[in-house]
Amino acid sequence: MTNPSKQNYKLTQTMLRIKDPSTAIPFYRDVLGMILLDQYDFESMGFSLYFLAYEDALIGEPPAPGPDRVAWVFSQVASIELTHNWGTESDESFTGYHSGNGELKGFGHIGITVPDVYAACARFDELGVDYVKRPDDGSMKGLAFIKDPDGYWIEVLSTQGISDIISMNAATARG
Amino acid sequence: MTNPSKQNYKLTQTMLRIKDPSTAIPFYRDVLGMILLDQYDFESMGFSLYFLAYEDALIGEPPAPGPDRVAWVFSQVASIELTHNWGTESDESFTGYHSGNGELKGFGHIGITVPDVYAACARFDELGVDYVKRPDDGSMKGLAFIKDPDGYWIEVLSTQGISDIISMNAATARG
Repeated sequence: MTNPSKQNYKLTQTMLRIKDPSTAIPFYRDVLGMILLDQYDFESMGFSLYFLAYEDALIGEPPAPGPDRVAWVFSQVASIELTHNWGTESDESFTGYHSGNGELKGFGHIGITVPDVYAACARFDELGVDYVKRPDDGSMKGLAFIKDPDGYWIEVLSTQGISDIISMNAATARG
Repeated sequence: MTNPSKQNYKLTQTMLRIKDPSTAIPFYRDVLGMILLDQYDFESMGFSLYFLAYEDALIGEPPAPGPDRVAWVFSQVASIELTHNWGTESDESFTGYHSGNGELKGFGHIGITVPDVYAACARFDELGVDYVKRPDDGSMKGLAFIKDPDGYWIEVLSTQGISDIISMNAATARG
């Protein structure tokens, strides 16, 4: 399983725009359980970037804030980059960001794998999280979609659950 | 740097819809250098899922196709899930997917970290890749954005280059 076109590239982030960091950051930190790796405030351009990831997926220890910390952040795989364009949080004419799942489709979701989808959803219920699909909705049982505060979809699955769903519903074609 | 709300969750994928796997898969494989981890064809629902990731980021050896392979795919961090709804590739009325960066904004991009942005872009030039921003366009030198075949943006950066850009342009606020 080696690609002859292999380069030393790494997939390091997925960027989503957020309306208000005071709701988005607590969601990714306290509900999803990520940690904030670093924050960059571009004052002259009026935006901030927040990088979050799961602690267990981090490569190496975080250096102190500064250039080494930046290099470390951009060496991590699987981080979420949240972009806040200043002012949207208090702009009453701002109608919010597009999830990619409305009339115009594109980006679908990010996906998290959890040990137990039902246990995770019980926790999400306690925390007042919005759902697109509860684990027992529809034909694909044991698979949920929740929404972040901006309406982006987050798939919640377990390796066992998704393996069962794919065994029941899909042909697996690749060796 | 530990989150008291830490759960055993993993960020495993970012899903993007694609019009035509015969152009999208070669791009992610041959241009970006990823490998195809597995493919799932949902015949009754008329769609296929393709999972790709960078070989060097993989955790564990791939099991043979089947349920163990599925569990392995959904245990990987930083994979790309490409969703193909059958028929779009030959539907002349299909106008394509939305990148998240047009009039309706949301999802921005995925980002790859490369050893040398200029070398990567020289290679992308040879391969006929479309650009949103070449590395020397605009004020942020050494940072590029390319487009995948569906028009999704891919940021191309290096740890040194982004560290320089952030040092020059941003306040870093987090410890």
